[in-house]
Amino acid sequence: MEIKVMENILDKNDEIAAEVNARLSARGIFTLNLMGSPGSGKTSLLEKTIEALRGEVRMAVIEGDLFTSKDADRIAGHGVPVFQINTGGGCHLDANMVKAGLDKLDLANLDLVVVENVGNLVCPAEFNVGEDVKVTVLSVTEGDDKPLKYPLIFKQSAAAVINKIDLIPYTNFDLAAATADITGINPVIALIPVSCRTGEGLDCWYDWLKTQIADKKRRT
Amino acid sequence: MEIKVMENILDKNDEIAAEVNARLSARGIFTLNLMGSPGSGKTSLLEKTIEALRGEVRMAVIEGDLFTSKDADRIAGHGVPVFQINTGGGCHLDANMVKAGLDKLDLANLDLVVVENVGNLVCPAEFNVGEDVKVTVLSVTEGDDKPLKYPLIFKQSAAAVINKIDLIPYTNFDLAAATADITGINPVIALIPVSCRTGEGLDCWYDWLKTQIADKKRRT
Repeated sequence: MEIKVMENILDKNDEIAAEVNARLSARGIFTLNLMGSPGSGKTSLLEKTIEALRGEVRMAVIEGDLFTSKDADRIAGHGVPVFQINTGGGCHLDANMVKAGLDKLDLANLDLVVVENVGNLVCPAEFNVGEDVKVTVLSVTEGDDKPLKYPLIFKQSAAAVINKIDLIPYTNFDLAAATADITGINPVIALIPVSCRTGEGLDCWYDWLKTQIADKKRRT
Repeated sequence: MEIKVMENILDKNDEIAAEVNARLSARGIFTLNLMGSPGSGKTSLLEKTIEALRGEVRMAVIEGDLFTSKDADRIAGHGVPVFQINTGGGCHLDANMVKAGLDKLDLANLDLVVVENVGNLVCPAEFNVGEDVKVTVLSVTEGDDKPLKYPLIFKQSAAAVINKIDLIPYTNFDLAAATADITGINPVIALIPVSCRTGEGLDCWYDWLKTQIADKKRRT
């Protein structure tokens, strides 16, 4: 009975997600569902990305958070359109929430929409929100055992950004082991080690993202 | 409709949680529900605690994880009884899962049961599992904005262990700000900054825990 309800919710969600994606795809907008643990560095990665791609990529952000607008405030500080979704305690975004956000964005003038999900390595992976791809941010301070412990989110993601590599010397994070585990779960995932603090590796992330945006435009 | 189902699930869960707690309390066993983000250091804190209280506190651990037994294997390596619960992708433990674990433990010879929840700063806070108190581990690498972003888990907790304080110099974590935010959410919470790596602050955690265990015995 409990499972049946869950299935119905997921079916309905997938329907709305398809609607959301169709609307964005009609404009050639590439849409990214950004996921990861609390504090993995999703918002920091976004802030760096906005600055790096300014003038080149027209970007908007939909921010998911339980109660606050802390992340949306950070993003707004960089001068890009941002829409805040508060889940009121809910542990993930769903397609309906993102659909409501679309009406607030000027879709005629965008190349990229990033949906920053609630900080959570479990639940967001189960709900499509209308994205083209999911991306997971894992920080080295979380530990290299996390991919095998939370496999679904890595299986669902087109890219895994391994953040805070500047802190590797102060942890026992084994990048080779984490890489092996993630590619074992998902052989076609793009693995991008970065430090949002020092900037190391971010060029690879920007290149990956720009390729996705260009591919989407070409397919439209 | 969705809300109604959720309420029913929570009511039923609270009933079973009360059963679990009654069974443990009858033996004077103190029970702790240990929560926190993936990689905050819950298992490391437990490993340190087992070693520090060896010979003094008879302890067992119930380990929650989506799929693996990685944490249970670490705990078993320290020679304490451990029971693994795999949620099969589920984002939190519930009382029924813990109830199943109790039958595997020798309750006549225990002072403390620690239930290590799934790594998640959202969902575990919503489900009692039969514990006397909840404790949340927050690591400094997650950022000092997390208490206000995830208030429920701090509101529900008797103690917050701020872990990885040895990494504060390499982050912009503001311990005073985090402390103010957490006590704003929960004025009676015990705040215990520690580093499981260097050992700093752990004595305060052991003292806090031993006081709780002794109080429970006295109340029985």
